[in-house]
Amino acid sequence: MGELRRDPVTNRWVVIDPERPDREAALKVEAWPPPPLPGPCPLCPGNESMTPPEIIAFGEPTRQRNQAGWWVRVTPDLQPLCRIEGDFDRRPEGPFDVMNALGAHEIVIESPEHQSTWADFPEQQLERVLRMYRMRSLDLRLDERFRSLIIMKNHADAASILSHPHSHVLALPFVPFGIEEELRGCREFYARKERCAFCDIILHERVSRVRRVAETDHFVVLAPFASRFPFETWLLPIRHASDFGKLGDKELVDLAWLVKRMMQMLGKVLGNPSCTIVLHSAPFDEPHTHDYHWHFEIIPKTAPVAAFGLGERLFVNPIPPEKAAALMGQQI
Amino acid sequence: MGELRRDPVTNRWVVIDPERPDREAALKVEAWPPPPLPGPCPLCPGNESMTPPEIIAFGEPTRQRNQAGWWVRVTPDLQPLCRIEGDFDRRPEGPFDVMNALGAHEIVIESPEHQSTWADFPEQQLERVLRMYRMRSLDLRLDERFRSLIIMKNHADAASILSHPHSHVLALPFVPFGIEEELRGCREFYARKERCAFCDIILHERVSRVRRVAETDHFVVLAPFASRFPFETWLLPIRHASDFGKLGDKELVDLAWLVKRMMQMLGKVLGNPSCTIVLHSAPFDEPHTHDYHWHFEIIPKTAPVAAFGLGERLFVNPIPPEKAAALMGQQI
Repeated sequence: MGELRRDPVTNRWVVIDPERPDREAALKVEAWPPPPLPGPCPLCPGNESMTPPEIIAFGEPTRQRNQAGWWVRVTPDLQPLCRIEGDFDRRPEGPFDVMNALGAHEIVIESPEHQSTWADFPEQQLERVLRMYRMRSLDLRLDERFRSLIIMKNHADAASILSHPHSHVLALPFVPFGIEEELRGCREFYARKERCAFCDIILHERVSRVRRVAETDHFVVLAPFASRFPFETWLLPIRHASDFGKLGDKELVDLAWLVKRMMQMLGKVLGNPSCTIVLHSAPFDEPHTHDYHWHFEIIPKTAPVAAFGLGERLFVNPIPPEKAAALMGQQI
Repeated sequence: MGELRRDPVTNRWVVIDPERPDREAALKVEAWPPPPLPGPCPLCPGNESMTPPEIIAFGEPTRQRNQAGWWVRVTPDLQPLCRIEGDFDRRPEGPFDVMNALGAHEIVIESPEHQSTWADFPEQQLERVLRMYRMRSLDLRLDERFRSLIIMKNHADAASILSHPHSHVLALPFVPFGIEEELRGCREFYARKERCAFCDIILHERVSRVRRVAETDHFVVLAPFASRFPFETWLLPIRHASDFGKLGDKELVDLAWLVKRMMQMLGKVLGNPSCTIVLHSAPFDEPHTHDYHWHFEIIPKTAPVAAFGLGERLFVNPIPPEKAAALMGQQI
């Protein structure tokens, strides 16, 4: 019989049922590589004029802006979800609230190499990417219009129009609903226990080990107890920290090593699946120092299993996280 | 420039941006009809022995149980998400909460006709389906183990293994997370205003008409102000009511008429899209008489537009609901 498991952060119940007949579908993953690009890649070196003017880049000391010679380059997104200029014009509309979609939507072009993925990146290159994430987090929070930062990477995403390795940085004037749910849960947990909910999870999982996928000096990767998706993992700093922007240099090197191993491992276990990696970090303008714990959520895009979950959010997962952790842990 | 709109029930912000370059994708819908079934259809008349024994059916007076002659038939699901028998065995597991996945998972076989859809159903047949929903709602709440009821219909669902028209009835020992979010929002709204949040929306939209898709004596269909998905609609009773189970007979006839017109309209506007129809009704065991408002959410399955929203739930919708309402309203 299946189980109902409750996520201790959000209090969300999830059905975990390894006997579901459609569990085979959960092992099928989206196709990779993506279809060939029609025309030249706007993210490749030499095509810098095809993107909006760059915001910042790491590269050779002699390099000029918007020229080749970069290692990691940040530009506004070609199809931004929100714009950086203008007024919010916050206003009511009848009983509703509305404002202009102001925000920063940048892309981090993670490598000059078009074909490469995080699994192939030299560690030094992944360190540069993570250092750039940290730099954007520290820079964008200086703009007091923005309340939160999302960093999102679609690894091997067949649906993306750009196959060149890149990630999205979004600074938003609101807190995305999924992060808000975690913050609320963490706040309530802390009010009751004076402890961080994620710290409790980490403590338990490092001892029990049944859902622990990997561990380094500074980080741990877990298959969460109430995993919503097959092979979902969370990558968390072991020491309590709410703000990714305060990541230290030694931790950054450790994190790059672990992220590369994670991507290589997912390639072995699931056959280089398309997956989404999202940074969850505390909002800029709220005191979450003690109650929130920053982390990456890594979610492979397997086939949908049961047709529930759109509006009602009833998650059904046929792969128990203990099983997923065992399969993944062997390959890391 | 796009807008940020806040849903007044849940306080969820949504990006509505009609200038998004990927908006064409939002008009592409999943293919229908589904692939042919391998082997005989277990839901067709004459194949009653292929399903678990029936729970209840409407049919010819002389008909025998588990024989042909039914108009609407309810059986346990062939691949239930949860089981009806056994103990919860509620228990902690370290810092986590877990219980056995007990619940009712039934299917309503909506017609003897294999090829038919809600758009083709005679109105009388849709009335029978809705009457059966009401009957299951009233019956399942007698089991005190269950806290909530979800009724979910996948219309023209190419992903379903069963193309015979059917819907799912789930009675659960918890409240699905998406419903819980609405309940929390409604509770907070009521505490502040002593009014139902949905009633305020209905009042405004019936006057302004810009997002009103259709209206009958008893029901109204709206494209919600902060629509998460292209062509999302909500079908609500005009008079405040929290519990679908208390639907009156006259309202039921009116509802059948409207639901049929909605399905016909979606066929004209989007080309018979696959869509999900979910009943949101108050939990059985909580006093939501005044603050919650039952409704159906109808969500056509268009292509995903922007690759956000999995864990962080950042919804981006390129079709403004005013536009969707105008297109839909013309065809109803």
